[in-house]
Amino acid sequence: MDDAEITLKRLAGLLGASLLGEGGEQPVMGVSTLEEAGGRHVCYYGNPRYARQLGSTRALAVITASAVETSSPNQLIVKNPYLAFRDALELFSPDRTSGFEGVHPTAVIHPTAVVARDVTLGPNSVVDRNARIEGGTRIGASCVIGPNAVVGRNCLIHPLVAVSAECVIGDRVVLHSGVVIGGDGFGFVPDPEGMHRKIPQNGNVVIGDDVEIGAGTTVDRAVAGSTVVGARTKLDNLVQVAHNVRIGKGCFVAAQTGIAGSTVLEDMVTCGGQVGIGGHLRIGRGAILTAKSGVSKDVPPGGVVSGIPARSHMENMKVMAAASKLPGLLRGLTRKKEERG
Amino acid sequence: MDDAEITLKRLAGLLGASLLGEGGEQPVMGVSTLEEAGGRHVCYYGNPRYARQLGSTRALAVITASAVETSSPNQLIVKNPYLAFRDALELFSPDRTSGFEGVHPTAVIHPTAVVARDVTLGPNSVVDRNARIEGGTRIGASCVIGPNAVVGRNCLIHPLVAVSAECVIGDRVVLHSGVVIGGDGFGFVPDPEGMHRKIPQNGNVVIGDDVEIGAGTTVDRAVAGSTVVGARTKLDNLVQVAHNVRIGKGCFVAAQTGIAGSTVLEDMVTCGGQVGIGGHLRIGRGAILTAKSGVSKDVPPGGVVSGIPARSHMENMKVMAAASKLPGLLRGLTRKKEERG
Amino acid sequence: MDDAEITLKRLAGLLGASLLGEGGEQPVMGVSTLEEAGGRHVCYYGNPRYARQLGSTRALAVITASAVETSSPNQLIVKNPYLAFRDALELFSPDRTSGFEGVHPTAVIHPTAVVARDVTLGPNSVVDRNARIEGGTRIGASCVIGPNAVVGRNCLIHPLVAVSAECVIGDRVVLHSGVVIGGDGFGFVPDPEGMHRKIPQNGNVVIGDDVEIGAGTTVDRAVAGSTVVGARTKLDNLVQVAHNVRIGKGCFVAAQTGIAGSTVLEDMVTCGGQVGIGGHLRIGRGAILTAKSGVSKDVPPGGVVSGIPARSHMENMKVMAAASKLPGLLRGLTRKKEERG
Repeated sequence: MDDAEITLKRLAGLLGASLLGEGGEQPVMGVSTLEEAGGRHVCYYGNPRYARQLGSTRALAVITASAVETSSPNQLIVKNPYLAFRDALELFSPDRTSGFEGVHPTAVIHPTAVVARDVTLGPNSVVDRNARIEGGTRIGASCVIGPNAVVGRNCLIHPLVAVSAECVIGDRVVLHSGVVIGGDGFGFVPDPEGMHRKIPQNGNVVIGDDVEIGAGTTVDRAVAGSTVVGARTKLDNLVQVAHNVRIGKGCFVAAQTGIAGSTVLEDMVTCGGQVGIGGHLRIGRGAILTAKSGVSKDVPPGGVVSGIPARSHMENMKVMAAASKLPGLLRGLTRKKEERG
Repeated sequence: MDDAEITLKRLAGLLGASLLGEGGEQPVMGVSTLEEAGGRHVCYYGNPRYARQLGSTRALAVITASAVETSSPNQLIVKNPYLAFRDALELFSPDRTSGFEGVHPTAVIHPTAVVARDVTLGPNSVVDRNARIEGGTRIGASCVIGPNAVVGRNCLIHPLVAVSAECVIGDRVVLHSGVVIGGDGFGFVPDPEGMHRKIPQNGNVVIGDDVEIGAGTTVDRAVAGSTVVGARTKLDNLVQVAHNVRIGKGCFVAAQTGIAGSTVLEDMVTCGGQVGIGGHLRIGRGAILTAKSGVSKDVPPGGVVSGIPARSHMENMKVMAAASKLPGLLRGLTRKKEERG
Repeated sequence: MDDAEITLKRLAGLLGASLLGEGGEQPVMGVSTLEEAGGRHVCYYGNPRYARQLGSTRALAVITASAVETSSPNQLIVKNPYLAFRDALELFSPDRTSGFEGVHPTAVIHPTAVVARDVTLGPNSVVDRNARIEGGTRIGASCVIGPNAVVGRNCLIHPLVAVSAECVIGDRVVLHSGVVIGGDGFGFVPDPEGMHRKIPQNGNVVIGDDVEIGAGTTVDRAVAGSTVVGARTKLDNLVQVAHNVRIGKGCFVAAQTGIAGSTVLEDMVTCGGQVGIGGHLRIGRGAILTAKSGVSKDVPPGGVVSGIPARSHMENMKVMAAASKLPGLLRGLTRKKEERG
């Protein structure tokens, strides 16, 4: 949208915010952070850690839940400021579309592949035997869509992504650069000679609608059947999803988390960063696995766990607090012993 | 193979299993999981965690070590059911070969490179100056083989893999998408002005025969000499192998493990997921490093370690169990003090 | 350089070392490790862990800080042997330049992009709309430079790297294969219907001069403003840098470390491998975060922390030492109780 046209007053209206301040006729040029904002930017304030920056920001206006003390001459007061911030960002999203629209002449499409008419295939992208790309999908440069793979409608696949043979990607899926869907699961079995033989990974990966997968994340194909990432689930960068894992709907998995083979995450599970989850486990609906925890047992629905090995977060906090006192405790015991001795 | 021809009886014969049930003449269409199987699939049962699914599976037959109670009308009883499962998977492996066989016209081969006659080079793959690709090897789309690199016979290199200058890949090696072989090791040295200067990484990487490396894994080149991954070793996804690491033969390294510079893993070492191993260490033959452990000392041959920092697994279990009792213990001590006080 | 011309005596001169031994007229062919060296190699000795190898090395000469007992017939004694080792490596660096110099005919450059005259663009590299590549920069095969992105002078971008829209790369930056600059940050906000809506990531990434980024590392674009990696900072492989993180100058971040959103690393911070740093934190100048620590609070300038959650390294050592004694302590307490009982 032509952002020159948006006054602060109009923005307040679009966001459902009430405007505190006299700057309603000022033009808004974009959204920024409290620290980096110039005089035509609006900013978001929601975390007390940034209270200090309220006093020095040069922003035209601050989006906030209630009036705050700030150097900014205007405030946009709104019930859900984080959502309003999101909407403002959307209004001012820069145009990032590639200059290479449509099917680039260097794209390589196998004669048996089916590519819908309005698909974008970036330079040097490859669509292999019998693959199918549905309408409205944009695939960046140097992506490789394997044999028999299916990519749904209105997906956005960034450059340098691999979707391997037979994998199925839903609609409106976003895959960031470096994602690998459908590498072989890690399976080997010792034979009578003590050598390890590869277990063929015959299955595939199925990615639900509205999933987003971060840069460098890997989702392995199943031994048999499917590795599944449920609809609306979001995986951050450099996450590892092993074979036959089934992730439910609406889950959030932060960066560098690893999920071992055949584990099930029910719907709405949240994982912090660098979590490790063992194989063949069930993580109940709505559970929260805090950052860096190492989960070696099932987690009940709604459970919150932390630690290595992970236990109830409450319990883990107590153990950690107690451990902090341990050096002092041991000194005390030693002293007592000496006094008695 | 034309799987329509395989009856359950014939499959039993091929797997060396005895058939329990009347379905010997039924055709087998594939291998699946207990949960997802249809009436023409065979499944594997080996983990008691899935006992419940035995009662509801619709599978034609279950591969198992001894007769079990199951809704499946047939059982294939065999001494090593996991190996039989593997063999069944192989019999029913889907055809995943690319539709782009041979050297694709868009592949770019430097005039000084040597590519054997029966090699497959996928679309947009690049083979640089003086590189050599030996017979029977298949290289997927958009791979880059650097100057002076060597790739052995009958390798399978999936799309979007980088094998950098001078690295040497053995025979029958499998590299999954996103693998980077031969990035520079992480080496810098402060100079007298307090600036850090890059240490040239003059060495290479040598990958042994029958190695398999998972998606997104990185193996850095040596400062001098070689970073080595020994024959038959398997690295999972997103593993980091630093410069001058030497991994022995027949090792298994699970996902997201990191191995710091110059460390040696002797043969047959097993690492769980997200293990970290410090630099300049020696991990003895057959040692087991459990998931998420942080190894900061040498591990003797056959040693089993866990924890951060890692200690003997036995010892670590005891410390973890004792730590769990700590909050109660501290409450008890406080109470006693108060009683005395 | 033509290494056949370098005698050991000449090398000593170039390194500012004094030569101990009679081999000054011997030709030096390269640099190697103590273990792998042949009779024309020089090696470095600086870590007592390798003392044993001094006795068996076949090296022509050892670079060392003071005379050592060694099977090598010559020693190069120098004040800073690690720096001298570095300089020797530079003298003998192999020629790794691609055979594809200049702009390869298969490179795809958008008509609105600006590429300096002496740039190398490898086969199948792509430069999108309005992007700018400055002089002396070499970009490897199958890289993708997004719309409006800028790459400075004399950079070295290895094959299969993505620099996304609007990101800015400084001068003399090295990006290894698999790096992804400018993937979307991980941001979603629940709307009143309880669904999660994507927060547009309108910002970019700014990489300072002389930065080096290891294979497979991902740096996400900011929500608004910039994610920043300061000049001379070095990131190892498979590191995750989230949106709006600001890393100062001269930092070192080892492999598989993750830094959550909006966190600030001041200058000269060092992170060991597999460190996790929570969001919205400030890590003070010169702080050291030891390997595998999980940092959930600010760290003061010069602070050294370890553990999960991280505390002062000193304190953590004491807690860890105390925890080791815990099983014995509990046995003691139980025994005492039984004696009293």
